Formats: sequence, C-alpha cells, structure tokens
Amino acid sequence: MPPGDVFELRPIGVVRSSLRERSDAPKQAFEGAPEALLEIDPAFAGALTGVEPGQDLIVLSWLHEADRTVLETHPRDDPATPLTGVFATRSPDRPNPIGLHRVTVLAIEGARMQVSGLEALDGTPVVDMKPLLRTIQER
Amino acid sequence: MPPGDVFELRPIGVVRSSLRERSDAPKQAFEGAPEALLEIDPAFAGALTGVEPGQDLIVLSWLHEADRTVLETHPRDDPATPLTGVFATRSPDRPNPIGLHRVTVLAIEGARMQVSGLEALDGTPVVDMKPLLRTIQER
Repeated sequence: MPPGDVFELRPIGVVRSSLRERSDAPKQAFEGAPEALLEIDPAFAGALTGVEPGQDLIVLSWLHEADRTVLETHPRDDPATPLTGVFATRSPDRPNPIGLHRVTVLAIEGARMQVSGLEALDGTPVVDMKPLLRTIQER
Repeated sequence: MPPGDVFELRPIGVVRSSLRERSDAPKQAFEGAPEALLEIDPAFAGALTGVEPGQDLIVLSWLHEADRTVLETHPRDDPATPLTGVFATRSPDRPNPIGLHRVTVLAIEGARMQVSGLEALDGTPVVDMKPLLRTIQER
C-alpha cells in the first residue's frame, strides 16, 4: 500500500431525520434515537433487492460533521474520563468518520426505507448497508 | 448532498495475513479465518490508547479487490441461489466495499496488533476500528 493512497467513497443515499444538530443526537442508538428515513439513490435500487421489513441491517454512514484530526478524546465528552484513543471509543471524531448503525427495516417503498432508531443527523450521507450476521452479532 | 459528492478515505494501516488470494479466503470469519497482524501507521498510534488484549473490536477495512459496479449477486457465489441485492448480502462486491470484521485483540505492541480470525486478504487496507457495543451486539 503506497503511502498517500486514498479511496473514494461515494454516497449511496442520505438520512432524513428529526435530528438536526450534533448536540441533539443521542450518543448511541439505544439512548432514544428516533426513526429515520433512508433515501437511497434510485441508481442503487437494484442493490436493495431482498431487503425486507423486519430485517436487521447495519447501516454505514459518513459522519460529515466529524473532526478527522482527533486521535484521543474524553469518552462521552466528559473531561473527568481519561483521555482515550478514538479507536477505543465510538466517537464520531476519528481519521475516517464512518458510522455504524444497527437498525430494523420498518417499511420499504422503492428506494426509500423507514428504519428504527438511528442516531445520525438529518443529511448524513449513507455509504453502505449489510445484513446483521453472526460475525458481528455474537460468537 | 450535491450529486457527485465524494469522501476521501485514508488508510490507517494494513492487514498482514496468510490469506493471499480471494479464492483462499473464507466467506465469513467464523468459517476458519486465520489470525492476522494489523500494522497500524505509527502516525495513528495515539488513537490506539486504551485498546487492550482481550478486547473485542470491529475492524473496518477497504476491500480493495472488490468490483464496485456489482449491484446484485448470487449469495455464496452459488448460481442456484436467487439473485439478491448486495445490500442484502455480505458480498465484498458493492458500491463502497467496506469490510466489517469482528476480532479479539490478542496482543498489541506499539502500533502492531495481533488479532483473532480475520477473513481479509494480506495487504487489505484498514480504515477504522471501534469497540463492540450493545448497539451492534444485541438489543
């Protein structure tokens, strides 16, 4: 891998949510995140074949408001917690701010999907989604 | 989100593994993936503060041999399975080929980490890592 190599991530869609600002967003989905709509670009509709209501997915987002220069942080923005490397935390501030969100598909119509609790802000780009498998869920 | 927007993903390290070719790699980590070494760029060593042996992490990779034009696939490369959208599968071929790998940290020395069963090929770029949380593991 030559140094300076970069990869181009192209959005496949966008999150539509009532969460408008970073200060409004819960730190984790289980802390009260609202339902959200994923507007997938119709060019990628074929990639949704077989995605069904009731299914659990991992949605990958690009946390576009993140600070990519941050390497260490105080977890939960609490100055009393020890300074911790971002790879040991779920902070959005990190070199490649990819968000992972476990959601349940509530409804799907064309390339628009309603999903359960998602802690990403309105306008957050979606870059991938995958079914939940045993590798991630448990072993 | 203006159409044509792209984001730059910069590798933070690389996978060193005995898996050399895509045909050698198991489809999922629980299907016999070997231990691997993650060589993290020393520039990002600070982001590893607090990562400890025994900890479970989700490693995000860039599946550099993937075909990004594929939208539908036959799961497990079996032509008898119905054609399925890549977002309903874990196929590496997808618009943004980000791999998710659940691993256990076995040892860490500076910015080099030995990890349990990882199904990524030798030379696969690493782009992020996160602790496993309840959002992903269970709810």
